Amino acid sequence: MVEPLNIALAGLGTVGTGVVRLIETNAELIARRAGRPIRIAAVSARDRTKDRGVDLTQYTWEDDPAALAAREDVDVVVELVGGSDGPALSLARKAIGNGKGLVTANKAMIAHHGLELASAAESAGVALKFEAAVAGGIPVIKGLSEGAAANKIERVYGILNGTCNYILSTMEDTGRDFTDVLEEAQRLGYAEADPTFDIEGIDAAHKLSILAAIAFGSRLRFDAVETMGVSPVKAADIEQARSLGYVIRLIGMAEIDRLDGGVGLFQRVRPHLVPIDHPLAHVDGATNAVVAEGNFMGRLLFQGAGAGDGPTASAVVADIIDIARGEKGAAFSMPASELEDIAPAPTGHRFGRSYLRFIVHDRPGVLAEITAAMRDAGVSIESLIQKAPSDDAGEVIIAVVTHEGPESAVTEAMRILDGSDNLAAQPLVMQIIAN
Amino acid sequence: MVEPLNIALAGLGTVGTGVVRLIETNAELIARRAGRPIRIAAVSARDRTKDRGVDLTQYTWEDDPAALAAREDVDVVVELVGGSDGPALSLARKAIGNGKGLVTANKAMIAHHGLELASAAESAGVALKFEAAVAGGIPVIKGLSEGAAANKIERVYGILNGTCNYILSTMEDTGRDFTDVLEEAQRLGYAEADPTFDIEGIDAAHKLSILAAIAFGSRLRFDAVETMGVSPVKAADIEQARSLGYVIRLIGMAEIDRLDGGVGLFQRVRPHLVPIDHPLAHVDGATNAVVAEGNFMGRLLFQGAGAGDGPTASAVVADIIDIARGEKGAAFSMPASELEDIAPAPTGHRFGRSYLRFIVHDRPGVLAEITAAMRDAGVSIESLIQKAPSDDAGEVIIAVVTHEGPESAVTEAMRILDGSDNLAAQPLVMQIIAN
Repeated sequence: MVEPLNIALAGLGTVGTGVVRLIETNAELIARRAGRPIRIAAVSARDRTKDRGVDLTQYTWEDDPAALAAREDVDVVVELVGGSDGPALSLARKAIGNGKGLVTANKAMIAHHGLELASAAESAGVALKFEAAVAGGIPVIKGLSEGAAANKIERVYGILNGTCNYILSTMEDTGRDFTDVLEEAQRLGYAEADPTFDIEGIDAAHKLSILAAIAFGSRLRFDAVETMGVSPVKAADIEQARSLGYVIRLIGMAEIDRLDGGVGLFQRVRPHLVPIDHPLAHVDGATNAVVAEGNFMGRLLFQGAGAGDGPTASAVVADIIDIARGEKGAAFSMPASELEDIAPAPTGHRFGRSYLRFIVHDRPGVLAEITAAMRDAGVSIESLIQKAPSDDAGEVIIAVVTHEGPESAVTEAMRILDGSDNLAAQPLVMQIIAN
Repeated sequence: MVEPLNIALAGLGTVGTGVVRLIETNAELIARRAGRPIRIAAVSARDRTKDRGVDLTQYTWEDDPAALAAREDVDVVVELVGGSDGPALSLARKAIGNGKGLVTANKAMIAHHGLELASAAESAGVALKFEAAVAGGIPVIKGLSEGAAANKIERVYGILNGTCNYILSTMEDTGRDFTDVLEEAQRLGYAEADPTFDIEGIDAAHKLSILAAIAFGSRLRFDAVETMGVSPVKAADIEQARSLGYVIRLIGMAEIDRLDGGVGLFQRVRPHLVPIDHPLAHVDGATNAVVAEGNFMGRLLFQGAGAGDGPTASAVVADIIDIARGEKGAAFSMPASELEDIAPAPTGHRFGRSYLRFIVHDRPGVLAEITAAMRDAGVSIESLIQKAPSDDAGEVIIAVVTHEGPESAVTEAMRILDGSDNLAAQPLVMQIIAN
């Protein structure tokens, strides 16, 4: 048998131990597919004594993850430490600097430092791979950067955060409210103790910025992702959406904006209304799905488990197998120096239908004020539902669906209504995905 | 700029001209992604004078496709001639023999001769690639052989023929009968003048045998695919299925059978009942979709355009870009010599629920005969619908859904009923996909 590919694992949380289990369980099959065995040369984590359910005694232990990058017997460093900076970034830089391949599941680090790392990897002639950073077990990085490589891609969007999707689809199934379902998700392990990154859309924004760079051949612009989370979505919104033929999903959407003769990079993470006959409307629970639209391939959909130790380990080891096979393709589908610097698209350029939800005090003149603001802003109303108060608080829900029009008009209508004492809460605007 | 990758195109039908258009339209982007330009060095087709809507005068013309394989200035031959043998196979052999890479969209040739060609390509140290042979523009070959490479895959199934899916979903939408919809599909160009390969399931069987080889690391066994087409499906079946919560789809399904201690290769193309909350139930029109289940990644779904010049050209050019990038991975995810020879699974091993439809004469004792046959064969009935005759022919439809049980029992019940003069037509058995 030929020489094995020697890897070092930094970080032995659920994904790290999943990688160990996968490499042990499927060792023979992996060797047949990779053309040579994958050998774990060394591992590192914070606590050596912790019981992780896998036998680590056969692997060399390093207390300092950075020491993995210095080992002569290591070809590829697998970074599963996490965090955009700190030890993860320091390890990644050292590994590449020492001529090792780097495989990581770290979306935050790639979203913030992906260009620097890709340039360094190209200079060093080593592979940088991060399939597991986006959409867990779904090979969507490979799908875009290789499978769709012949296409000009103008739009990529999808359900990129399993926690939010679990919460929204559970709210949909049970009629329960956000806080209640989030607490349950935390108890069941579907949401972190500190769920901020997930529920505020930051995790999805990390992933979206990576997908956009690959899809459009543009430089990573995580800073320019317009981000809103799922916490403002109420059970009443889900009910209204359903009665109109939609479900609500947290969608990350990136598009090349060609209005006004320029080229802009549009990136947004927000709850959207999705028509029930759209493939993304049937993506429930912790599942992720990504849609890419190319000028020759048409619409492509990838769907699968977006998180969990098994699926994420599957993506990590797929990257390792690629490297074992000798594949060192550019991290973002083309050399980092070829990526275009596309400025963020001006806000308000987008055109489409929107859902607006108001919580108002139950008194005369409220509807007149809202509809006048819409008229003055040039927003055309397709449907409007006013729902009687469900409790004694005297608050009424008004849900409006607009005709297709510029989003800037909706923003203007919201500006007109801003501070009105008829409103009992901040209005919520959600875009409607076209079919 | 570095040296271009020089390709020769054999076959200038819709896919061939699509490839020319794609390479011309996206030339600059492709060069950035591939690291070098893709240059069409020569082309060949039957009729030089035919107007194909693209300007071919700038490319060297060869009357004999085999001459392309002999040209010094060609690195990769793209075979789009079609047919399992004849000129396509002869060209493929010559190209590989002359040390050229081979890219093809020819599912029939790969299903019949894939092993021979893969071995030859490995000996010659050249790439053999056929992404476009399965599921058009969907990068499912890459998804399985690279994206899912870390997994033991035990089942792969999907909607592999766009013509059949168009017919079934149109029957579903309109209530019209098979022959009627097929004629329309032929008029609209969704079905060939001779639709046999599509509607009898042979095209799907070609694709399934290729997917199975990659998924399971097994030798291609197209000869062992149990195949039935969609022509026996009646509008009444679709109506019954719908009332039970299912749609009908032509499904290709391959699985590793581990019953009785052995290992068998199960491959079947047949109309199936798909629960309406299964992702495949929402795949309409000419769309294709493939599901793969791996021991770490869980369930993965790929969906997109299964045919058409644009999507198929997208897959062909993705293969060419892979070769331009220096990727020469094994055609079936591992060297041909590593593929296991797995014997076909014994029939009757499978276990599940089935839908049985009888067309019977409207007279006493018919239902007693059918239910007695089921009892004697050990088939347990979950539901039974007898529908009054819709015309004056005096024929009645009886639709039965069984409880989960061995398919061999259903086969036995059919054997008992075989030749009964109560039956006005051959009964139809369709398996029900588990959720």
